[in-house]
Amino acid sequence: MLLTKGERTRSAILETATDLASQEGLEALSVGRLADATGMSKSGLFAHFGSKEELHLATVDHAAVIFVREVIEPARSAPRGIARVWALCDGLLSYLEREVFPGGCFMYTTVMEFKNRPGPVRDRLIEHLVTWRGYLAHAIEQAQELGELDGCVNAEGLAFELNGIGNGANIEFQIFRDPQVFENARIAMRERIESMRA
Amino acid sequence: MLLTKGERTRSAILETATDLASQEGLEALSVGRLADATGMSKSGLFAHFGSKEELHLATVDHAAVIFVREVIEPARSAPRGIARVWALCDGLLSYLEREVFPGGCFMYTTVMEFKNRPGPVRDRLIEHLVTWRGYLAHAIEQAQELGELDGCVNAEGLAFELNGIGNGANIEFQIFRDPQVFENARIAMRERIESMRA
Repeated sequence: MLLTKGERTRSAILETATDLASQEGLEALSVGRLADATGMSKSGLFAHFGSKEELHLATVDHAAVIFVREVIEPARSAPRGIARVWALCDGLLSYLEREVFPGGCFMYTTVMEFKNRPGPVRDRLIEHLVTWRGYLAHAIEQAQELGELDGCVNAEGLAFELNGIGNGANIEFQIFRDPQVFENARIAMRERIESMRA
Repeated sequence: MLLTKGERTRSAILETATDLASQEGLEALSVGRLADATGMSKSGLFAHFGSKEELHLATVDHAAVIFVREVIEPARSAPRGIARVWALCDGLLSYLEREVFPGGCFMYTTVMEFKNRPGPVRDRLIEHLVTWRGYLAHAIEQAQELGELDGCVNAEGLAFELNGIGNGANIEFQIFRDPQVFENARIAMRERIESMRA
């Protein structure tokens, strides 16, 4: 798909915006801060984003596109069933380990920041998180329909747990910078899945 | 223990400070913001905390005292072994469910905020988190020494997982306000512990 020059500029700005916000939080992401980081003028940025809130919403949506590209899309090529559940888990850990966002998971950092701040930004973040968790739960249900996982398992509960292991590894790695944490997380996820085989 | 009037005032100020920071983050906690919330003058507050950083460090330490009082102290009365591991897990969930801090876990919110901001505040937060996780791991090791849990289990790894389930429940509850999440977390923790019985 060919992008216009305006679309390319917008995308480049949002790339910087997601990187900044994953490290410093969304609240710190003002048009002024972004002007410093991109070398663009404030008025040039205002042509793309009319307000701080608009900038925040566009940044959140851009981060979601990156998450889908890095975690969900690659898993679509795996066969349905446990293989796809595993591809999603492994893809999540790989995305965190490669630091696609330099501050770890953009969504998790910003949802912690906005959890007690009602408004459109919080709503948008939750929307994306619910979509991701729903996708993971759906992959688990497919594995149940195929008879690979125990049908009695609560798919949403298992999705919650697997995602929780990923979140734990994320914060652990951001603090201690020891990549071993991802290996431990893979073992924990695998054991959790294995214990629920049909 | 009797507190002097100055100590009582300081403690009351820090109570407000931890409540504010658990909801809005530490960065938003300035002497000015705290003056608004407590009705004290800025100069009165500066007599207690000479700088924003000093205020942040005192707030973090106060939150740690509350965490110890609410989660660790009550578990000390449980017998060593699985009973104490469970008391710690259950106590963590109870502390989150009762919203001892109105924004959920103070430590988790603020460590997410400061993870990419090197300095004394980040160091202090990590120190408290390491102490807590070490305490949980130690309780698991005691259960292994008593022959209740499998000696081959990596105690730190299990502590990481149990804590991760708690963190997941915390953010989930803060977003969706459904207390069922704590029941699910209890089930997940119990299954994890049961699967590692000697």
